Amino acid sequence: MNAFARRAEPNSIAAVIAGARAILGDRLSVNESVRLQHGKGEDSTTPTLPDAVAFVQTTAEVSRLLALCHHHAVPVTPFGAGTSLEGHVNPVRGGISLDLSRMTAILEVNAEDMDCQIEPGVTRQQLNDHLRDQGMFFPVDPGSVCTIGGMCATRASGTNAVRYGTIRENVLGLEVVLADGRVIETGGRVRKAANGYDLTRLFIGSEGTLGVITKIRLRLHGIPEAMSAAVCQFPDLAGAVNTTIATMQSGIPVARIELLDADQMRACMAYSKLEGYRAAPTLFLEFHGTHAAVREQAEAVEAIAADFGGEGFAWATEAEARNRLWKARHDAYWAALALVPGWRGITTDICVPISKLAEAILGAKGDAEARGHTTCIVGHVGDGNFHQVILYDPKVEGALERAWEMDRLIVARGLALGGTCSGEHGVGLGKREFLEHEHGVEALAVMRGIKTQFDPKGILNPGKMFRN
Amino acid sequence: MNAFARRAEPNSIAAVIAGARAILGDRLSVNESVRLQHGKGEDSTTPTLPDAVAFVQTTAEVSRLLALCHHHAVPVTPFGAGTSLEGHVNPVRGGISLDLSRMTAILEVNAEDMDCQIEPGVTRQQLNDHLRDQGMFFPVDPGSVCTIGGMCATRASGTNAVRYGTIRENVLGLEVVLADGRVIETGGRVRKAANGYDLTRLFIGSEGTLGVITKIRLRLHGIPEAMSAAVCQFPDLAGAVNTTIATMQSGIPVARIELLDADQMRACMAYSKLEGYRAAPTLFLEFHGTHAAVREQAEAVEAIAADFGGEGFAWATEAEARNRLWKARHDAYWAALALVPGWRGITTDICVPISKLAEAILGAKGDAEARGHTTCIVGHVGDGNFHQVILYDPKVEGALERAWEMDRLIVARGLALGGTCSGEHGVGLGKREFLEHEHGVEALAVMRGIKTQFDPKGILNPGKMFRN
Repeated sequence: MNAFARRAEPNSIAAVIAGARAILGDRLSVNESVRLQHGKGEDSTTPTLPDAVAFVQTTAEVSRLLALCHHHAVPVTPFGAGTSLEGHVNPVRGGISLDLSRMTAILEVNAEDMDCQIEPGVTRQQLNDHLRDQGMFFPVDPGSVCTIGGMCATRASGTNAVRYGTIRENVLGLEVVLADGRVIETGGRVRKAANGYDLTRLFIGSEGTLGVITKIRLRLHGIPEAMSAAVCQFPDLAGAVNTTIATMQSGIPVARIELLDADQMRACMAYSKLEGYRAAPTLFLEFHGTHAAVREQAEAVEAIAADFGGEGFAWATEAEARNRLWKARHDAYWAALALVPGWRGITTDICVPISKLAEAILGAKGDAEARGHTTCIVGHVGDGNFHQVILYDPKVEGALERAWEMDRLIVARGLALGGTCSGEHGVGLGKREFLEHEHGVEALAVMRGIKTQFDPKGILNPGKMFRN
Repeated sequence: MNAFARRAEPNSIAAVIAGARAILGDRLSVNESVRLQHGKGEDSTTPTLPDAVAFVQTTAEVSRLLALCHHHAVPVTPFGAGTSLEGHVNPVRGGISLDLSRMTAILEVNAEDMDCQIEPGVTRQQLNDHLRDQGMFFPVDPGSVCTIGGMCATRASGTNAVRYGTIRENVLGLEVVLADGRVIETGGRVRKAANGYDLTRLFIGSEGTLGVITKIRLRLHGIPEAMSAAVCQFPDLAGAVNTTIATMQSGIPVARIELLDADQMRACMAYSKLEGYRAAPTLFLEFHGTHAAVREQAEAVEAIAADFGGEGFAWATEAEARNRLWKARHDAYWAALALVPGWRGITTDICVPISKLAEAILGAKGDAEARGHTTCIVGHVGDGNFHQVILYDPKVEGALERAWEMDRLIVARGLALGGTCSGEHGVGLGKREFLEHEHGVEALAVMRGIKTQFDPKGILNPGKMFRN
């Protein structure tokens, strides 16, 4: 009854591989390169190979496979698009990598109720392409080409969350396969309910440690009558941060408000060929609503920005110009990594109360500069959440460890300001060390108790979220 | 290890009463009338008396009391303002009624972050009186004079939820005393987090069966620049319902959209002395935003209403006129009960996808009329949620049972339409019979497993949510 099973016995793994092959045929792969592709996400972790990769296509297959793995106590690590930044998909104890990326059916779209039901391998882009003709969209946008199943598992958010909420607020219900293969449904199609424990929210953000999500009901939103993006540059970081704080405190319903510091802007200009800007602290903004409302919101923010030294708004109202801007924003991580050829990066994800944002960002940047780190800051600052990519030279011994030390310093400052170690990337492997300090011993014990109840043999994504 | 403990042994109760008196002094009462006041809420259930009532004032007292009750396996039933409509506060197995209504401190208000921390006995009205000078308000408004702790426990919502969300979306974090007296904190001050299991959402709606909420962090909202209420009457119920559906589908961000059927309107006109209206199906609306936005929204809804036979908008823009209107709406339950002197009522709480609202409401009203029941319908129709008060003559044998049969018919129709038995009142005693059908055997087993993990001796509000 250890919730954190070690690597399974070789003959148990052999039995699972044989059984899984009987279920999946050649969609069960032990090919070395396939296993390597499933060894890590987009983070700087060291890949760990699963014993086999299972490309599932139906809930029934997931159910049979989990029952099999449960019987033999073999670990199962769910895998979507492999875009995790925290080691969620690394099969650190071997076993099966459960690849859900082929479950891409859009099962229902209910236009009158603005909801839909999809399989977990559907990406945000695929769903929005499907919905466009019906005047609706799914707003949660972490920026990467991730699956919506992965977004549910990690409680993802992104650029639109300031207006439309995170994935947590946009999921109506789930179908989940439990550790032993039982299938349950949570939530439903209604907008609200007071009908028992909120199992939906318990699985959202559980990072594959409590069950495997096989269907998702989402809330959708109407495409606004008008959308308008703007770029505003500032002489200093404080001006951009304080504009954000004042905007949020004014209650202006901005759809996106994203900060790029001077280093990040320099990186994006080079990587995404953005022209007409300076390498200065910059806000990317977007407004949604009726034409009148968008104008009213934009004028209000422009006035605030002017108070803090913001130098005019460069507007992008056409879809093409807006898309180019947000593509550059979404590529910010890759742009940062490209800033110094041959270097790599790790990224922080702290989120603080908005009133503490200036202190958190200016402090983090100052600490990095004092220690001689090259870092880029990009953030969903309307929610108090920002990422600082800490670059390091992988050829220099100890450089990665020094980057981690920098990361710990930034997290410690965030926690001291009443914040969290993770606004949206999740815990995975990389943030486990902070949870006890953040939640306290007793609350973490309650989480472990839930884990043990849902997964007594510890086969579901073992080694993640909790340190042994 | 039975999760649904029966009545405790007399000597265990005596030990708890002696121990509780040592902790609370004369705030531990065994007075018969005090116990009777804690025997039921505002529903039609039969009161069941606790062995004693504990008026707690601090988290430490709650912790010591729960540790004591846990040791002796004595039931504890939390009590706030006693406004439950589903038997949540009835101590059906005796033991201690834990009265939290004296914990009324507003601990923190952070104006820059628009959040606050309060004790669970604070009422919505108390909090809003406190906040008014700072230009902020707490929007969740179930209508009754309930405590915010009780609202958290029952996942309450009410008239503003269509715009601002339910209590679920407006709680940032909690302090909770567990069954054995341990104290944990969940969530925090940040707007979003991906930092472990969502314990906050697990306690929201858990109806006192998993722990006792002793502190609450809430999101607050800015008081809008303009607020405007309107009343629109319709020749038939279908016109009012279809206006609601079309308004929601148009994405107009109405702050409130409440339906009263002709019988309910007749009741409210008599009870609240509303003048200038007819006993006809009626929508009460409210719009929040800038002056321009409010005008734009109101014009859009007025045009939709006209398409469905709505007869003009009667406006109430002054605070006094708006308050009179919403007071009448909030008193709708009492107005319905007063419709036939000497009669009582039970109330339904189904919530359906908005596209099914017309079918659910028209069907429910038609069924009631066909069976000769006098009923009043009032609903948060923007969320697909409505209440049908079924009146009965308590002097007639079998009348209450016939009312319950009517209730079951309405719930069955709601579930068949993809809805839930409870949009906002909770499960308590009254809705337990529907949960297995609504969630399925396996999902309900998962909920029972959580209950057993959190409360192995079954002392926390036993008999609620689950049937034995």
